[in-house]
Amino acid sequence: MGMLYDKLMKGYDPAHQTDGISGERLAKRLDAISEIGLTEDDGSHRPGFSKTEKAAKELVSDWMREAGLDVRQDGAGNIFGRIAGKNDDHPAILSGSHLDSVPNGGHFDGPLGVLSALEVAEAWRETGYQPEKPYEVVVFTDEEGARFNGGLHGSEAVVGKGDIEEKLKLVDQDGMNFSEVLVDSGLSVDSYVKAKRSPEEIEMFAEVHIEQGKQLEREGLPCGIVTGIAGPCWLEFTFTGEAGHAGNTPMNDRKDTLVAASAFIGRVNELPGSISDSAVATVGKMQVDPNGVNVIPGSVTLYVDIRDIYKETRDELIDRVMALAKKVAAKHQVNVDHVEKMRVAPVPIEEETQQLLEESFHEKAIKPYRLPSGAGHDAMIIGEKWPVAMLFTKSKNGISHNPAEWSDLNDCVQTVHVLKNFLEKVSAK
Amino acid sequence: MGMLYDKLMKGYDPAHQTDGISGERLAKRLDAISEIGLTEDDGSHRPGFSKTEKAAKELVSDWMREAGLDVRQDGAGNIFGRIAGKNDDHPAILSGSHLDSVPNGGHFDGPLGVLSALEVAEAWRETGYQPEKPYEVVVFTDEEGARFNGGLHGSEAVVGKGDIEEKLKLVDQDGMNFSEVLVDSGLSVDSYVKAKRSPEEIEMFAEVHIEQGKQLEREGLPCGIVTGIAGPCWLEFTFTGEAGHAGNTPMNDRKDTLVAASAFIGRVNELPGSISDSAVATVGKMQVDPNGVNVIPGSVTLYVDIRDIYKETRDELIDRVMALAKKVAAKHQVNVDHVEKMRVAPVPIEEETQQLLEESFHEKAIKPYRLPSGAGHDAMIIGEKWPVAMLFTKSKNGISHNPAEWSDLNDCVQTVHVLKNFLEKVSAK
Repeated sequence: MGMLYDKLMKGYDPAHQTDGISGERLAKRLDAISEIGLTEDDGSHRPGFSKTEKAAKELVSDWMREAGLDVRQDGAGNIFGRIAGKNDDHPAILSGSHLDSVPNGGHFDGPLGVLSALEVAEAWRETGYQPEKPYEVVVFTDEEGARFNGGLHGSEAVVGKGDIEEKLKLVDQDGMNFSEVLVDSGLSVDSYVKAKRSPEEIEMFAEVHIEQGKQLEREGLPCGIVTGIAGPCWLEFTFTGEAGHAGNTPMNDRKDTLVAASAFIGRVNELPGSISDSAVATVGKMQVDPNGVNVIPGSVTLYVDIRDIYKETRDELIDRVMALAKKVAAKHQVNVDHVEKMRVAPVPIEEETQQLLEESFHEKAIKPYRLPSGAGHDAMIIGEKWPVAMLFTKSKNGISHNPAEWSDLNDCVQTVHVLKNFLEKVSAK
Repeated sequence: MGMLYDKLMKGYDPAHQTDGISGERLAKRLDAISEIGLTEDDGSHRPGFSKTEKAAKELVSDWMREAGLDVRQDGAGNIFGRIAGKNDDHPAILSGSHLDSVPNGGHFDGPLGVLSALEVAEAWRETGYQPEKPYEVVVFTDEEGARFNGGLHGSEAVVGKGDIEEKLKLVDQDGMNFSEVLVDSGLSVDSYVKAKRSPEEIEMFAEVHIEQGKQLEREGLPCGIVTGIAGPCWLEFTFTGEAGHAGNTPMNDRKDTLVAASAFIGRVNELPGSISDSAVATVGKMQVDPNGVNVIPGSVTLYVDIRDIYKETRDELIDRVMALAKKVAAKHQVNVDHVEKMRVAPVPIEEETQQLLEESFHEKAIKPYRLPSGAGHDAMIIGEKWPVAMLFTKSKNGISHNPAEWSDLNDCVQTVHVLKNFLEKVSAK
């Protein structure tokens, strides 16, 4: 066992080791996966469609088989480990996540969701429980998108989402296109397209994921109920005015685009609160031109990332941000143009699903706490076609996509307990 | 004659061709200098201490000799062309500027000041006028600083300003240090240091320069009286907060440094007007980190360029900008640190000198208009040791350091008329 195992087991409360769920097994497996693509910073490096992602999938497939699951890989490289239901013709309940990582990422984002779903299967085997409906543990390919600077390729294949012609235009850092990368992974464009599953095969997908935020940490809770997955919209704004000498242009004779952009950024920060509690808007990236200490900026390009879990409020926020840009530009006598770079639909989670999760929390004596998911996940894609449920596990300091990413084993195991309880409820419905 | 000559002569009013001053000669000479280091964009490329700067100096030295001036080069490569005064033991009156340019710069910034001073000498020769006090036309070396990313090396040598040990640490793009560059120009560190002139050698330095701003253009005036040369202060501020996921961090739980920096930039823009009419403050350069569309900026570094022609108001503005940064940072719950990168003393121009210039404007039937110089010039350095006067010539669209830099010949010649009148007044005092 490696360092991660020891660190996870430190402070682990064996009281959670009930109902066939083993924190020790979960820790061993998180540790074993962390060894695949381990970086010098003790981070994870398993890009989508890489040898390391494949090795992690094979390891998990072995565990699935050992646990008695019927394992298959689809044409997109997604892995499904199936337990037959008592009523095996019923649409299946799926749970899982991904095993790929961002470059030099953490050890929980993805693997925790896969191993939590597998741990439920292990617990069922140990306790002799057979679900009413078939159950599949799933590993989606390339969620993070490190390969093509845009991911979710595994879950998109299952949904049948996206334009395959567009995907074929993708080229990775080494100049390999999407088709070549599939072939290199023992797949093909044809097999990828055939990975699409029909609506009647699946009843629901439940995903466990680290929060990547600090709400649960602040509340002192091991896990929480996700209310919806925010759809991101990215708007690029370019303010253009007049460059000029910082010394020779009087203050009242300027068309300073950075002053205009700054007024805009300040107001953008105030907008979400007036629209919805779950809405957020962020300016994270900006370029100033010519970016000289003694030159009044002639142009500023910046990006606004706008999200909410409700389409109506998200789209209202987008409209208000665009109107604001025009208003601020006019006031500062500069021009502004915008380009919509991305607009993904938010995925709401059904109230009935959230209530069922709440019951599971009560039964496991955990205070049910609801929070939105601001980040995209495989559940966001699957949610376009099937009902989804999501559980967040507490993240230390909210850090993710970084070797410092951390979730305590007690919190992980409590999440598995809730997941198991919930899946049993859904299976029995 | 080249293109510049034809363009200058178009629309030239021969009515200005009086008192021995020749617009045609000025145009020919501006044209001849423009041919040295002419770029593909029809710009000037004559970096300090380069072969092109040297060639331009040699050409001007020839003209000086033809005009009967006694020419010498000092140990810093500065050229002085002297006309003996009736009272030749009196401290000399100097006028001139520089011949080097920024990379791909314009044809007026520098050469106009040198040729205006020379044109006065030509006019005196043609009209048989000998000044009471000795008069020197001066060409300063390397004003723009294209060679070492920091100029004014010629005027600094004359003043004896700056730490020679610091200069010796300078290295140019090709890896040549300051000493090697001097030797390459037929000079030496020893000769450079000996270029310092004693206070009693000089009475005053008068510099003609293009405005590099748009005030004279807006006023419809050929030239203006510079009230002082603003001393720039550069402050670097670094705001540090907390990076976070743009989707998973609620609006009320952020330490967004770009929001803080934006509030600061907006307020910095409002400060100068409350302190002095001539004060300016500009944020021209900033870096956002990590600068990702979906990441709340964890740190922002920006530079504030603060200038005024009065030390008291300039320093008050500096203090207020620093206090503002602390206040804004505290309000936004982020940290801020600052580093003072530069603080050059402003050079005020004596009221008596400005009044004398005003008389010359009246005598030449030009409305006297006073304006500050926001940019640094050789007169800023010389002004630390001797009284200085400065005249600005109207700049088209305020553009400078660019091939599009332009001043009409009529405006240039009218500036020479004012300069000549003023120099005669100073000489007769």
